[in-house]
Amino acid sequence: MKVGFIGLGNMGQGMAQNLLKAGHTLAVYNRTRAKAEPFQAKGARIASSPRDAAQGAEAVLTILSDDPAVEEVVFGGEGLVAGLERGAIHISSSTISVALSERLAAEHAQAGQGYVSAPVFGRPDAAAAQQLWVLAAGAPADVERVRPLLEALGRGLTVLAEKASSANVVKLSGNFLIASMTEALAEAFALARKSGVEAKTFLEVFQAVFARSPIFERYAALIAEGKYEPPGFALRLGLKDVGLVLEAAGDAQVPMPLASLVKDHLLTGVARGFGELDWSALGALAAERAGLEKL
Amino acid sequence: MKVGFIGLGNMGQGMAQNLLKAGHTLAVYNRTRAKAEPFQAKGARIASSPRDAAQGAEAVLTILSDDPAVEEVVFGGEGLVAGLERGAIHISSSTISVALSERLAAEHAQAGQGYVSAPVFGRPDAAAAQQLWVLAAGAPADVERVRPLLEALGRGLTVLAEKASSANVVKLSGNFLIASMTEALAEAFALARKSGVEAKTFLEVFQAVFARSPIFERYAALIAEGKYEPPGFALRLGLKDVGLVLEAAGDAQVPMPLASLVKDHLLTGVARGFGELDWSALGALAAERAGLEKL
Amino acid sequence: MKVGFIGLGNMGQGMAQNLLKAGHTLAVYNRTRAKAEPFQAKGARIASSPRDAAQGAEAVLTILSDDPAVEEVVFGGEGLVAGLERGAIHISSSTISVALSERLAAEHAQAGQGYVSAPVFGRPDAAAAQQLWVLAAGAPADVERVRPLLEALGRGLTVLAEKASSANVVKLSGNFLIASMTEALAEAFALARKSGVEAKTFLEVFQAVFARSPIFERYAALIAEGKYEPPGFALRLGLKDVGLVLEAAGDAQVPMPLASLVKDHLLTGVARGFGELDWSALGALAAERAGLEKL
Amino acid sequence: MKVGFIGLGNMGQGMAQNLLKAGHTLAVYNRTRAKAEPFQAKGARIASSPRDAAQGAEAVLTILSDDPAVEEVVFGGEGLVAGLERGAIHISSSTISVALSERLAAEHAQAGQGYVSAPVFGRPDAAAAQQLWVLAAGAPADVERVRPLLEALGRGLTVLAEKASSANVVKLSGNFLIASMTEALAEAFALARKSGVEAKTFLEVFQAVFARSPIFERYAALIAEGKYEPPGFALRLGLKDVGLVLEAAGDAQVPMPLASLVKDHLLTGVARGFGELDWSALGALAAERAGLEKL
Repeated sequence: MKVGFIGLGNMGQGMAQNLLKAGHTLAVYNRTRAKAEPFQAKGARIASSPRDAAQGAEAVLTILSDDPAVEEVVFGGEGLVAGLERGAIHISSSTISVALSERLAAEHAQAGQGYVSAPVFGRPDAAAAQQLWVLAAGAPADVERVRPLLEALGRGLTVLAEKASSANVVKLSGNFLIASMTEALAEAFALARKSGVEAKTFLEVFQAVFARSPIFERYAALIAEGKYEPPGFALRLGLKDVGLVLEAAGDAQVPMPLASLVKDHLLTGVARGFGELDWSALGALAAERAGLEKL
Repeated sequence: MKVGFIGLGNMGQGMAQNLLKAGHTLAVYNRTRAKAEPFQAKGARIASSPRDAAQGAEAVLTILSDDPAVEEVVFGGEGLVAGLERGAIHISSSTISVALSERLAAEHAQAGQGYVSAPVFGRPDAAAAQQLWVLAAGAPADVERVRPLLEALGRGLTVLAEKASSANVVKLSGNFLIASMTEALAEAFALARKSGVEAKTFLEVFQAVFARSPIFERYAALIAEGKYEPPGFALRLGLKDVGLVLEAAGDAQVPMPLASLVKDHLLTGVARGFGELDWSALGALAAERAGLEKL
Repeated sequence: MKVGFIGLGNMGQGMAQNLLKAGHTLAVYNRTRAKAEPFQAKGARIASSPRDAAQGAEAVLTILSDDPAVEEVVFGGEGLVAGLERGAIHISSSTISVALSERLAAEHAQAGQGYVSAPVFGRPDAAAAQQLWVLAAGAPADVERVRPLLEALGRGLTVLAEKASSANVVKLSGNFLIASMTEALAEAFALARKSGVEAKTFLEVFQAVFARSPIFERYAALIAEGKYEPPGFALRLGLKDVGLVLEAAGDAQVPMPLASLVKDHLLTGVARGFGELDWSALGALAAERAGLEKL
Repeated sequence: MKVGFIGLGNMGQGMAQNLLKAGHTLAVYNRTRAKAEPFQAKGARIASSPRDAAQGAEAVLTILSDDPAVEEVVFGGEGLVAGLERGAIHISSSTISVALSERLAAEHAQAGQGYVSAPVFGRPDAAAAQQLWVLAAGAPADVERVRPLLEALGRGLTVLAEKASSANVVKLSGNFLIASMTEALAEAFALARKSGVEAKTFLEVFQAVFARSPIFERYAALIAEGKYEPPGFALRLGLKDVGLVLEAAGDAQVPMPLASLVKDHLLTGVARGFGELDWSALGALAAERAGLEKL
C-alpha cells in the first residue's frame, strides 16, 4: 500500500521499518528532518509536511508524543485533513485523549476521510522487533482496509468497537494498570525494606510468585464475568489480610496509601454484605460506584 | 521426619498429603475430627489435641485461618508450647500478623523450642499439586533442619532473614499486590464498560498484553535497584497518561480512586523534580515517605 | 457609575438589587428576558445582548454558572469584548476556571479593556442581604475604579494580587474547604450512627464544640505562619487518635477514606521525623509535596 | 464529693484545680510526684498509688495520654479496680480507644463499680479556664451521680447513650474533624502559595469567610437530617468546582489528595443519580458505604 508515516521518534522508527519490510511504499515526515534521512536510504520518500506525506496515500499513520503534537500535524493548511484524499484513512497510533480521538473522528468524517484509532502496547524495543500488540477501532470497512498495515506492526491485533475512541480508552486503561502495579510495588518494597527484608530478596520472591504467573489473568477473568461465587478467597479474609498489612506498616512507620484505599473498599464490601464473595468482588463495587448494572 | 500437622482445611489437606507422600510420619490434628479421618487411612495418627500432635515430633506445622485460630492451638495447657519438646520446631504457615509471629518467636524461644515462619503462596489446587512457593525465616539452623519438609510442600523455597516475622511481611505484601491489582482491574473494567467496550473484549486485550508478560517483573526490578535513569518512560509522560485516564473517566462518570491516588503521586514526582526519571520512580517517593534512604 | 449587569440567576438578582440601591445606573441582560423585567420597574434598562449591556458602561459585571456560560457572553459578535469601550472594565464574579480567567485577562487587555476578577463567597440569601465577601484581583488602578461597586455587594472585600486569576484560585479553594469539611462530616456521622449515637446527638456536640469556634482559625494561622513549634498537640498523638478512629470504624464496619488519607499523612510525618511538631505540620508536608520551600 | 484524681499533665492540672475550686475533696496521684505537690498546698491529699487515690472516694477521674497509661493505673494490684469500693465510679476522661473503653466498662461492672466515659473537648488553656465541653456516657444513675463533677470541669455537658464507649466514638470523631480540616487547609495553602497568593492573604480570606461562620454548622445539620432536597448548591456544581480546583492544582503542580478523594465521591454521586441533590449528599454516600439505611 501507499502509506504516509508521521513521527519518527523511538516508537515510530521501528514501526516505519516494519512497514517497509512488509513491502509498503512510504512517504515519511518528521519535524526534525534528520531523523527521516536514514529512511530515504531504505527507499522511503521524505515529505516536506504532513500534507505532503498524505499526497496520494491510501493511509497515513501518526505516532507522536501527545495531543498538541497530533493536533499540529492534523489541522491547519499543511495538515493531514488538508492533505488526505477523500476515502483515504488516518491511522492514529499515538497515546492521546479520548476527547481528541473523538474530534479527529468527526473532522475526518466531515472531510470524507476515514479514521482508525490504533494505539499500540509495547516499548521501542518491541516496536523494532515487531512485537507490539495493536488495537483498532473505527468503521469496520476502514479497519479491514488497513489491517495489513496493522498486522505488519506487531504480534497481534484486537479489533474493538466501531467507536474509534474506544481504542484510546483501552490503551489508557492499560497504562493505568501499569502505573497502579508500579505504585503497589513501590509501597510493598518500602514496607519490605523497612521491615528488614532486602530489596533484592523481595524481588526474588516477586519473580518466583507473580512474574509471568496466571494469577492476574485469573482475577481479570472473574471481574470480566462478574463471577464472584463460589469464593476462591473470601472478601472478608482479604480485608483481614490487608488490615494486617496496614498494622505492620503502621508499626514500621511506612505509609501505604494504596493499601489504605484497598482496605476501605474491602471494608465497604463487608459492610454491604459481600464478605463471603470472592475478593475480586472489588469489581462489583467499582461498577456500582460508576452506576453500572451488574454483569 | 516425625511431624505434627495442625489444620486440615483446604490448604492443609494438600500440604499434609505431600508430606506423607515424601515419606514423613504424621500426627494430624484438626478441630473438626472428621477432616482428620481420611489421613488415618493413609497412615497418619490422629492426635487428640495440639499438645498431643506435638508429642515426640521433631517439628509441627500449623496452617490455620487467622491469628485467633493460631493462638488457640499454640497457647494454653493443650497447646503447642506445652507439647513441643525442647529443640523441636514450630513451622507456622498461616497468614498471620507480624505481631503474632514475633510473639510466637519469643514464646517458643523462651520454652527452648525453635520457630520457623513459613507462609506459602498458592491456592488449594496449588497446595494439592505441590506447586506452592514457600518462604522461610528463622534461625538458620532451624530452617535447615526443616528444609526437607518445606521442599516437599511446593515448587520452590525462598529463605529470608533470621527475623522470623520477615516472612510474614513478605507474604502479606504479596496479598497486598494481588488486592491492588484486583482494584486496578476493577476500575479499568468499569471504565471500559461505561465507555462502550465489552468486558470480554477488554479481558482479551489484558490477556494478550499483560498476562504472563515480563512487564511487571521489569518494573519490580527497577524499584528493587532504585534505577530510575535513563527513563524507559518518563514520569511526566506517565502523569499525562493517567491525567487522560481521569479525564475520560470524568466524562464517562466513572470514579477511579486508585487512578486519582496514582496521579497525585506522579504529580508529586513532577513537583519534586523527578519528571524526567522513569515513572517507576514512584518507588523513590514511597521510600521517601517512609523515611528510607535512597537505594 | 454606569454599569452593565449580566446574569440574573439566584445570585445575580440580589447583587443587581444592591447596585441599584447604591445609586448606580444599570443595563441588565439575561438570557431569559423574563428575569430582567422586574429590574426595569426599578429603573434599569433591559439590554438586548451582552454587547448592548456594555454600551457606554464604565464596567460590566458578569455572574453566571460556569465557564461555557461566561465564554458565551464574552466572545463573539454580540459579546462583551466587542461591546466594551476602551478603558471600560469587565468584573467577573462567576466561579470559573483559573485557565478561563487568565484567558479573559489576556483578551480584554488586547482589546484595551480592563479585567477585574471578583468572585464572591456567600449563598443567594447573603447576596440579597449584602452579606457577601468579595475578592478582587487585577491591575490596581482597575480594582480601585470599581471598588465602589464591589463594596456595594457585600460586607467586606479582600484585594489580592495583580494576577487576576489569583482570586479564582482563592474562591475555588474556599469551595474545596467546604467540600472537604462536608466529606469529613459525612464520614463522622456514618461512624457515629453505626456506633449507636443518634445523628441529632452528634449534631448537638458538633454545634457546641466546633460551630462558630475559633478552632479552625487557629489551625489556619499555624499553617499560614509555618509555626509548628512548640506543639499544641503533637503530631504523633494525632496519629494515635486517627488510628483509634480507624480501629473503631473497622470494628463498626464503617469505611472512612478521608480518615485513611489523613492517617497516611500523619504517618508520613512521623516517619519523616515530624512526630513532635504540632499536628498542623500537615501543612509542611503538603507544601513539601508541592515542591514549595518552607515558610 | 470525695474524689480521686489521676493524671496531672497539662490537661489534668486545670481540671483538678476546677474540682477543688468547686469545693470537692481531692486525693491526687501522678506518676511523677513533683507535679502533685502544688496541689497539696491547695488542700489535696497526695496518694501513693492509683489504689490509694481510690480509697474512700465516691469517684475517681483519670486523665492520661493513651491506652497503656490508662491500663497501667486501672489494672494490677495497685490499680483502680483493686482500690475502688463497690458502687464507686471511675470517670475516664482520657482520649482512649473504643475497645479499651468497652473493656473498662466490663471490668468495673464485674467488680461492682460504676464507669462513666467522659472525654473532653478543649486544650489545656480551656481546661484551666473551665471552658471544656464534656461528654458523658454510661449508666444514667452513674452519670447523674457524677454530674456535679462534670459540670465543674467546663462550659457544658452532653449526655450520650448508656453504652459508655459511645462517648469515645464522639470524642475521636471530633479529633478526626480537626485533622481533616487541617489537611484541607494544608492543601489549600499549598495551592494558594504556588499560585502566587501569599499565605497571610489566604489566611485573611479564611478568617473573613469561614472562621466562626455558621457554614459548617449548616452542612452538619443537613447531613444529620438527611435533608438533601431542595439543593442549596447542587452536587453536580460541586463536582464542577472541585474539578476546577484539581485542574488549577495540576497546572500549578500541587498534589491535592483530599481534593481527589472528594472529587471521586462527588463523581460517584453524579454517576449514582444524586447530581441534583445538595452537595451535602456526600453524607448519603458515606452512610451507604457503611451499609446504613437512609435517614
